[in-house]
Amino acid sequence: MDERRAAVEEFSSVRLNTIGSCPFDPILAEKNIENMIGTTQIPLGFVGPLKVDGDFAQGEFLVPMATTEGALIATVNRGTAALTASGGARIIIIKDEMTRAPVFRVRDVRHARQVVMWIDEHFDDIRKVAESTTRHGKLLSAKAFANGRSLFVRFAYHTGDAMGMNMVTIATQAASELIEESTGAVLVSVSGNFCVDKKPSALNYILGRGKLVLADALIPREIMEDKLKASPEVVAETCYRKNQIGSSMSLSYGFNAHVANMLAAIFIATGQDPAQVVEGSMGTTTAEVVDGGLYISLRLPSLEVGTVGGGTRLPCQSEALSMMGCLGAGKAKKFAEIVTATCLAGELSTLAAQAKGELASAHKALGR
Amino acid sequence: MDERRAAVEEFSSVRLNTIGSCPFDPILAEKNIENMIGTTQIPLGFVGPLKVDGDFAQGEFLVPMATTEGALIATVNRGTAALTASGGARIIIIKDEMTRAPVFRVRDVRHARQVVMWIDEHFDDIRKVAESTTRHGKLLSAKAFANGRSLFVRFAYHTGDAMGMNMVTIATQAASELIEESTGAVLVSVSGNFCVDKKPSALNYILGRGKLVLADALIPREIMEDKLKASPEVVAETCYRKNQIGSSMSLSYGFNAHVANMLAAIFIATGQDPAQVVEGSMGTTTAEVVDGGLYISLRLPSLEVGTVGGGTRLPCQSEALSMMGCLGAGKAKKFAEIVTATCLAGELSTLAAQAKGELASAHKALGR
Amino acid sequence: MDERRAAVEEFSSVRLNTIGSCPFDPILAEKNIENMIGTTQIPLGFVGPLKVDGDFAQGEFLVPMATTEGALIATVNRGTAALTASGGARIIIIKDEMTRAPVFRVRDVRHARQVVMWIDEHFDDIRKVAESTTRHGKLLSAKAFANGRSLFVRFAYHTGDAMGMNMVTIATQAASELIEESTGAVLVSVSGNFCVDKKPSALNYILGRGKLVLADALIPREIMEDKLKASPEVVAETCYRKNQIGSSMSLSYGFNAHVANMLAAIFIATGQDPAQVVEGSMGTTTAEVVDGGLYISLRLPSLEVGTVGGGTRLPCQSEALSMMGCLGAGKAKKFAEIVTATCLAGELSTLAAQAKGELASAHKALGR
Amino acid sequence: MDERRAAVEEFSSVRLNTIGSCPFDPILAEKNIENMIGTTQIPLGFVGPLKVDGDFAQGEFLVPMATTEGALIATVNRGTAALTASGGARIIIIKDEMTRAPVFRVRDVRHARQVVMWIDEHFDDIRKVAESTTRHGKLLSAKAFANGRSLFVRFAYHTGDAMGMNMVTIATQAASELIEESTGAVLVSVSGNFCVDKKPSALNYILGRGKLVLADALIPREIMEDKLKASPEVVAETCYRKNQIGSSMSLSYGFNAHVANMLAAIFIATGQDPAQVVEGSMGTTTAEVVDGGLYISLRLPSLEVGTVGGGTRLPCQSEALSMMGCLGAGKAKKFAEIVTATCLAGELSTLAAQAKGELASAHKALGR
Repeated sequence: MDERRAAVEEFSSVRLNTIGSCPFDPILAEKNIENMIGTTQIPLGFVGPLKVDGDFAQGEFLVPMATTEGALIATVNRGTAALTASGGARIIIIKDEMTRAPVFRVRDVRHARQVVMWIDEHFDDIRKVAESTTRHGKLLSAKAFANGRSLFVRFAYHTGDAMGMNMVTIATQAASELIEESTGAVLVSVSGNFCVDKKPSALNYILGRGKLVLADALIPREIMEDKLKASPEVVAETCYRKNQIGSSMSLSYGFNAHVANMLAAIFIATGQDPAQVVEGSMGTTTAEVVDGGLYISLRLPSLEVGTVGGGTRLPCQSEALSMMGCLGAGKAKKFAEIVTATCLAGELSTLAAQAKGELASAHKALGR
Repeated sequence: MDERRAAVEEFSSVRLNTIGSCPFDPILAEKNIENMIGTTQIPLGFVGPLKVDGDFAQGEFLVPMATTEGALIATVNRGTAALTASGGARIIIIKDEMTRAPVFRVRDVRHARQVVMWIDEHFDDIRKVAESTTRHGKLLSAKAFANGRSLFVRFAYHTGDAMGMNMVTIATQAASELIEESTGAVLVSVSGNFCVDKKPSALNYILGRGKLVLADALIPREIMEDKLKASPEVVAETCYRKNQIGSSMSLSYGFNAHVANMLAAIFIATGQDPAQVVEGSMGTTTAEVVDGGLYISLRLPSLEVGTVGGGTRLPCQSEALSMMGCLGAGKAKKFAEIVTATCLAGELSTLAAQAKGELASAHKALGR
Repeated sequence: MDERRAAVEEFSSVRLNTIGSCPFDPILAEKNIENMIGTTQIPLGFVGPLKVDGDFAQGEFLVPMATTEGALIATVNRGTAALTASGGARIIIIKDEMTRAPVFRVRDVRHARQVVMWIDEHFDDIRKVAESTTRHGKLLSAKAFANGRSLFVRFAYHTGDAMGMNMVTIATQAASELIEESTGAVLVSVSGNFCVDKKPSALNYILGRGKLVLADALIPREIMEDKLKASPEVVAETCYRKNQIGSSMSLSYGFNAHVANMLAAIFIATGQDPAQVVEGSMGTTTAEVVDGGLYISLRLPSLEVGTVGGGTRLPCQSEALSMMGCLGAGKAKKFAEIVTATCLAGELSTLAAQAKGELASAHKALGR
Repeated sequence: MDERRAAVEEFSSVRLNTIGSCPFDPILAEKNIENMIGTTQIPLGFVGPLKVDGDFAQGEFLVPMATTEGALIATVNRGTAALTASGGARIIIIKDEMTRAPVFRVRDVRHARQVVMWIDEHFDDIRKVAESTTRHGKLLSAKAFANGRSLFVRFAYHTGDAMGMNMVTIATQAASELIEESTGAVLVSVSGNFCVDKKPSALNYILGRGKLVLADALIPREIMEDKLKASPEVVAETCYRKNQIGSSMSLSYGFNAHVANMLAAIFIATGQDPAQVVEGSMGTTTAEVVDGGLYISLRLPSLEVGTVGGGTRLPCQSEALSMMGCLGAGKAKKFAEIVTATCLAGELSTLAAQAKGELASAHKALGR
């Protein structure tokens, strides 16, 4: 690593001292990166205690966030305080599937129909082949979508506590080869952009990918005014004009204020794939005045996280997951619930701040 | 910072040793984060030399990428080699504007029209107020979009070498207050989701936000076969069935293979806002067989980057920008060109790998 | 009717002679309209013979089209000739469901989950109630989608040979009242825009509504050149740049040339609901050079047609359906196949004309 | 015509008596259709008097609607009565442009930039060539959008009182040929699906095509309860859960209840192009409780209508336009205002009916 970095320094005529001062043994990262020359250090802070009332996460948590965006943690923390004072965020996970969708070339639409029928009739065989490549992945379904000479088959898997992209790619490759041999369909690509990974899509906004999570809370009026200095009415109006009308006017796939901010900061802190913030950003936040307080909800259709594998194995990232009791097997759903609760806190706080006209002044004061 | 971390350790009953071993003075990050307890270390590697043939970037560059996704850098590097051998990536920037769009409440559609007329007639006054808050920001336009009692005004600015969100938020707040006082429109939120920041949107896919960049290259057949082991024909077909047909079938806003991967890795390495990978992901990659070689192009409508301010001030991030000669004033467009060229390299390589059925095996071999 | 028309004439000071000369007994239309004052006459022509190679339609057909757009029928007819000379259009129907999706107000996300579980557990009861309102409708599924305090349940039905909107609305109303009584969810509207009727939507583009139909054909090179004066290569390129790249650039839900034209003309001629041209327009046309000829395909995800009920009962409309042997029970799928084949003919011809630069001259010559 | 119909009768073995009884001289339709065999008669009714408070339409109007959908006119008429009793619908037209967007093939992105620069520099020449083909069309702008080797140029025109598609196609063809000769760009198709005609698109939802029209009204509580039997509160909630939340959940481009219904019925009655109901359907309806009453608004971004040319020349269609004083030159904006007001009436009435749970019973009673 040091030699490589020296070569880069020479090529660039730049000293990379801070990058070079890696506080952990680089060998630990050998499965995570190639051409390593050091590390990037991202400031790490936290929000909380945040009370989460989920099926897997129960209690109060400190949530690590790695960010360089001044004011972000302060903002989320105000929402955290309001949520916790109100009894916490209620969270439910209603779907949990990771998908991979190869595209095949077929001869024509009749051939497409034959292939689809073959897949339906041989689903058990396909499942066996797919699952033979993995210890944890379970194939749930394989649904075909045809369009002329292109045939997309969307494989959906349970992937245990791994985010699972790697696992499902290998399994789907094996399954696709079986389909290819048996039907004459030609595998063009194991990913046909009908998965859809790391791109925003209507498909996953509607049907979900990874974990589809719902969250909500009812914030009593006095907590709104005490902690957030905003009435339920003005926050509900802000949410309506911004998240519903505004996002419809721009035809956005994100009907929220800034979910991506919380996701990016937690994903980086905990070793998730930060490019999957893309589909994570497709959330919907709604707010209504209920019983004199503010009802606020968040729907995250495509939250793709894991607590084993990938970046979670690295030292800092492991510690960050451990802070929430979320490291390792059996923790992915708990972690997804805490992430979603944190997003809800961030939404609540920012909507309140924007409702009060404070967004600009917060940035001024905290020197973002 | 240490006391804070100690408190977190006590709350969580977890030791945060690696997080705590911050190789730089935390005071440097005081404008970038609150509640800091340490840093997250992300493995940093690089790709290149990558030849870039832009208006601002000219020559060969080593590009830093921070990632925990095994195989990513190796993949991009293959594309880098093929691009460089083919004379490099041609890049042009065709738009450069940062936007903020407040939402106002108006009385009705006639009132909306009055406000719009007032804005058009007083654009110079509005510009003076907006620009009085900033040294670098220049207001270019303020276009209104009305819908019932909601009125959105999309302010577009030149922001120099800063990404500029903070700058334009403060300027727009000032301009909005002038509109509010002069027209009776009520400012509901300085961000009305018609900006649109950190959410995918048709608006920015079509019109662009930040830098709208085009890139392309023509890879001769022998380089395709030598460096990428795939013919122009199979790569063009893969691109067509995946990026065009597949993305249309899923109604994705991203007609590309994995632009978000390259963006996330470079953004983290260089102190950009990683949540803006969301809109960055909305690229279009096309491929055609031209003159016996592979023509490949990338359109990135919403690349939001800066070389001053924000996370670029931090030690590792400064070093990473310096590696490419992109730190500080006068470098943002050069940086945008290098980023786009790297994305093109990643697209080329992954399309070739998927065309050959290698995606799964690469992941297996490199233990992602 | 005559008195009513006289009153309109007096109010408007206009004579409505042609409107008033209704060639059929107005009493026949009493279930189709209120406040009737006469009829509108739309010029009716036809295309064909068009060879259709479907599962229900087999043979050659003359297809009635009512239009006021000069050049439309001439254009489609050229495509018809080419298709027929090539052995006809192959058609398959891969889904056939009409949907209605009420929106309920629930207390919170946990209540939403309870309601969803109740629906799943009591699907048989729901089906009985829904089907008790109709002779022909069969409830296939009822899938719930939750978002904060709004819960959408998408009911899908087989509706026999009727288009079926009326039938499924009444059935869903009954089912919704059962859900309301049993779960405490409050029915806000029997249509919650998750159906989605007469609006373009990603949901139905992806999953389909009404009949999801695929069509294709292989046009040999000599027929392309003889009948359409265009080579397979230029038509394939036109399709690619227009229907794939162009529609992606405008983020259209219609990746075709002008499917809506054929649908509107046939829908009006045969008593379909012309507002459903909206979702019908969401088709995808692809073209590729295959074996030296032009492969062309069409995917229509949301073709909503019937051969009984609604406007099909009226005299002209019945005659038009009869022209194709498509009037009455047992004919809806046959009719859907002929409609789709006609759309394919129109796509083929217009792509060829645009490829040759003839669109403008055709309009000039035929005085559109 | 009679011989042609006889041939069809023989081919089909069906008698086409009603189709054949054309009450007007078929020669009148010779520019509107080819292969004519008769006419289709659509029942014609009306709604109103509807009070319109526009810039061009002022007063009360009876609006003709041709439909076969029972209950539609009765429904709209209830809304008409409520609107008129409340002082009418306020209407403003904020944009009026018809577009055509050819797609060119360019060599690469640098060539694309040269072509774009040429277009910008020679806009006056382009305009002269385009306008030389038409008496009424005025070229307003020609904006280029590049993507790899595909270059789209969106031409926008004023088209006077014609809907104008034919006019702008011919003008754009001429302009495109000039561009082709001068720049080396190759015209692939005069329509590149960036226009976008007869397909739903984000582009036109956001920027508009044809006439972009806003409408609203404030319905006092007592009129809501008297005429529509629904409180402002329940209608506002229905609108919110259906048009805002529901349409966002299905990612629809139509945030309304059933605008397409009114458009289709008026378009058919008045000789508009019924396939353009597609883009017309992309409206947004909002409702809020204001001053104790119901504020309701409609935004129609893409209303494409004319009062000269096309189907407006036919006898019934002329009479129908005359009913509203909208036939011929100088009337297109007045007509657009009346159309939009009628859509608002239909929205108001249907939202109220759905809010009360009456949609199903209305269909039952009126035997749709």
